[in-house]
Amino acid sequence: MTAENEPKTGTDVQPDLSERLLELAKRRGLFYVSSEIYGGLSGFYDYGTTGTLLKKNIEAAWRRHFLGLSDNFLEIEATNIMPKNVFVASGHLANFSDPLTKCRKCGLLYRADHVIGQALNRSVEGLKSEELTQLIKDNNVKCPKCGGSLSEVKVPNLMFPVHIGIEEGTEAYLRPETAQSAYVNFQRQFEIMRGKLPLGLAIVGKAFRNEISPRQLLIRQREFTQAELQIFFDPEKVNEHERWDEVKDYQLNLLLAGKNEVIKLSCEQANTQLELPKFYVYHMARVQQFFLNVLLFPEEEFRLRELPKEERAFYNKIHFDVEVYLKSFGEYKELGGVHYRSDHDLSGHQEISKKSQTIFYQGKRFIPHVLELSFGVDRMFFGAMNNFYRKTPDREWEWFAFPPQIAPFLFAVFPLINKDKIPETAAQIFRDLRLQFPGTYDESGSIGKRYARVDEIGVPYSITIDHDTLQNNTVTIRNRDTAKQVRVEVKELAETLGKLIKGAPF
Amino acid sequence: MTAENEPKTGTDVQPDLSERLLELAKRRGLFYVSSEIYGGLSGFYDYGTTGTLLKKNIEAAWRRHFLGLSDNFLEIEATNIMPKNVFVASGHLANFSDPLTKCRKCGLLYRADHVIGQALNRSVEGLKSEELTQLIKDNNVKCPKCGGSLSEVKVPNLMFPVHIGIEEGTEAYLRPETAQSAYVNFQRQFEIMRGKLPLGLAIVGKAFRNEISPRQLLIRQREFTQAELQIFFDPEKVNEHERWDEVKDYQLNLLLAGKNEVIKLSCEQANTQLELPKFYVYHMARVQQFFLNVLLFPEEEFRLRELPKEERAFYNKIHFDVEVYLKSFGEYKELGGVHYRSDHDLSGHQEISKKSQTIFYQGKRFIPHVLELSFGVDRMFFGAMNNFYRKTPDREWEWFAFPPQIAPFLFAVFPLINKDKIPETAAQIFRDLRLQFPGTYDESGSIGKRYARVDEIGVPYSITIDHDTLQNNTVTIRNRDTAKQVRVEVKELAETLGKLIKGAPF
Repeated sequence: MTAENEPKTGTDVQPDLSERLLELAKRRGLFYVSSEIYGGLSGFYDYGTTGTLLKKNIEAAWRRHFLGLSDNFLEIEATNIMPKNVFVASGHLANFSDPLTKCRKCGLLYRADHVIGQALNRSVEGLKSEELTQLIKDNNVKCPKCGGSLSEVKVPNLMFPVHIGIEEGTEAYLRPETAQSAYVNFQRQFEIMRGKLPLGLAIVGKAFRNEISPRQLLIRQREFTQAELQIFFDPEKVNEHERWDEVKDYQLNLLLAGKNEVIKLSCEQANTQLELPKFYVYHMARVQQFFLNVLLFPEEEFRLRELPKEERAFYNKIHFDVEVYLKSFGEYKELGGVHYRSDHDLSGHQEISKKSQTIFYQGKRFIPHVLELSFGVDRMFFGAMNNFYRKTPDREWEWFAFPPQIAPFLFAVFPLINKDKIPETAAQIFRDLRLQFPGTYDESGSIGKRYARVDEIGVPYSITIDHDTLQNNTVTIRNRDTAKQVRVEVKELAETLGKLIKGAPF
Repeated sequence: MTAENEPKTGTDVQPDLSERLLELAKRRGLFYVSSEIYGGLSGFYDYGTTGTLLKKNIEAAWRRHFLGLSDNFLEIEATNIMPKNVFVASGHLANFSDPLTKCRKCGLLYRADHVIGQALNRSVEGLKSEELTQLIKDNNVKCPKCGGSLSEVKVPNLMFPVHIGIEEGTEAYLRPETAQSAYVNFQRQFEIMRGKLPLGLAIVGKAFRNEISPRQLLIRQREFTQAELQIFFDPEKVNEHERWDEVKDYQLNLLLAGKNEVIKLSCEQANTQLELPKFYVYHMARVQQFFLNVLLFPEEEFRLRELPKEERAFYNKIHFDVEVYLKSFGEYKELGGVHYRSDHDLSGHQEISKKSQTIFYQGKRFIPHVLELSFGVDRMFFGAMNNFYRKTPDREWEWFAFPPQIAPFLFAVFPLINKDKIPETAAQIFRDLRLQFPGTYDESGSIGKRYARVDEIGVPYSITIDHDTLQNNTVTIRNRDTAKQVRVEVKELAETLGKLIKGAPF
């Protein structure tokens, strides 16, 4: 691995970081276990008041970036509950399952491929349940906890069934991914959007999976938010994109299947040397730009990892995961993926629904192909917490260096002391600014305490109103990251904040 | 009823309006049945690309209005799936059910209270299942469809159960209202928000009910979006509000329990004459202002209807429904409610969770009371479609007069003809404006067709680029509602749109 692309394990792992993030998250309202007073539900988290602002800002940034790519990319909102046949068509009913084995002695459940993989020290992902059962027998794999023998391998479906209506009713499921909603809406939306390709349907919504072992806080939950963009296009045009020139020299961070080192290739090189089609590579670039230029993840901790064939869904012709190094786990985590799903889904729906999914476009009839850009919002949220967490020698408190675009609040207003009309003046300034920017107000405790409070939730700018404000109509703005302060006229405050958001020097 | 407050049934009913709205909704991407290619699921609707914009704008307007009421009102985001004990505490597990009876001959299911009420021509709401069964027997109530005899009355629960985990697992439910999420989060959020009352927790999220007979399009669905604000306050202060003076002369449209006529009372009068507490009345005024001043529903089609005791939940000390007259049904429909839920919910959670829900506040220890402002987002959406639907003599097409704040797009840009650099100029103007406002671009078909297309989805302003634009840098803006056109310089376009949104005369 190149030093540039791979953080050194050992120095960059912060084993206590998960705990620190969780403590801050609970205390400051970022996230905490759902239904906490009932002991919580494993794999379910609620976002508190601060976290909801941060999460919605990440979602808004995602929409601006990805829906901004084309006027023909728009969002839909579809139900979480969908009828059984949707998942017959998609293959989820037959295939969406993890292989499980149970200890006959202590009763613990294990992902069979994980427990066998650990015992044999090699990957056994993708094997069938009978093959896994055989491996347990042949190698005498035991329960890692108590040494008991392991049961034969079963594969329960990971979807949550929902029964609609009374008595006979209708079999349905909570969707395990938002993607299927876009596919079953494609025909109608193609007509509504007046028959143009490429056509993008975005969904920012919930998905539900009855995970066997939810873990790593927001990373593997049973109810989670996806932000997905399904792009329908003409497969004959897979090696073109009208804006190709904008990205052709852009450098991608790629970890190819079977390789250990991240390489940098321009989009042009990825297209010619790796034979990845331009339509695919163009969107890889836009995805990488979102993580590096919008969410501001460090370039050396970001990679697009190609999945080896045995790890990816059989219908994905090309599959790169979007991976970011998370210090709290000391490893790369999948925050998203770029999936060339071909016509797998629409063909499946055509077969099961008996409704043609072909379109007539530019003189020919065909089923469009789908490029899926898929992201876990909760994972991006937790990724941002990891990435922007700071513990610096100059401060007694921990803080978050969230970029202004996603910070829960953009500014805070503090009256330095609570007398001489200072609080009234501060409140007025706060109200005026709030018409344009999200802000928070705090008049209790020492000014240091107040800086600590807003630093802990990553508020970029703090504005202090003092006696000088009453004299000469100026206030101080403090930069969260540098702690540097400048004095600004009240009447220029809104304009100054506007410039700071856009990156003016401070 | 006063002529002013009650639309005349017969003249104002538009029986074909539901059909017209549904046709427009499907054709133009407002909403349509979910999983349509599989025949749809009764009681489930998806929002198309146009509808998603409209719905999100209504949600954003709701947040601006209600969260703008106090710096201590903030939003949280909580899981849809919650453990069983939440609903033991709330009473949903025991009481959330409709009484049902089944025809022994044709097998149809009926809401027992409805079928008996119709047969006896009086309301039997609120009676127990045994009482309803007795009424069927005593009055020989038959199946309205086939005349068959009716079964005894049963009361199946309306929640959707969800089983979490494999084998034993955990019993849980899809929440039937967002409110419980706020209640179980109260203790932690009270601490996070540093112990101030009144404290408001808002949730804009999904709720799920296994309705026996979903109907009236978006009005009664099985999966729907609520926007709810739970306000926690000191019950000793129920007859005060620090901003009372702002509303005391504001006139409320009230339909009191047992009355037939809407009356207008100032908040002051509602407080003194009806003995409604100020904290409650203050929020009634803010709710009415949202419907009249933000969503722009006509005053004479809006009322706050007091529920008679037998219709309201036993724990609601005071309960007014927010009702709007919907022309497509020819009747008032509940779009929301103002519920004084007292300490019912927090006390219930304290009892079942064994976690104290008392707080220590201003020298005393108590369980806060809750005022709930509850709204159906889908219902407000459908209410807006009803209210802003237009069929006028001057146009061949139907259109929507959505206010700029909620319209799917604020502006459209049309190149008058597709040559002489006009499309390029139009596209540039479009791109510039889109940085500030949501817009759409259309260059196909006659200008009349293009006006029709944007009128049908309620775009307030259309901007046409023609040969004069190339000469003198001016464009025309057309006002959707009046069809009046003005000529404006390109460089003043953004500023002009900004003023128009704020209500500048056109």
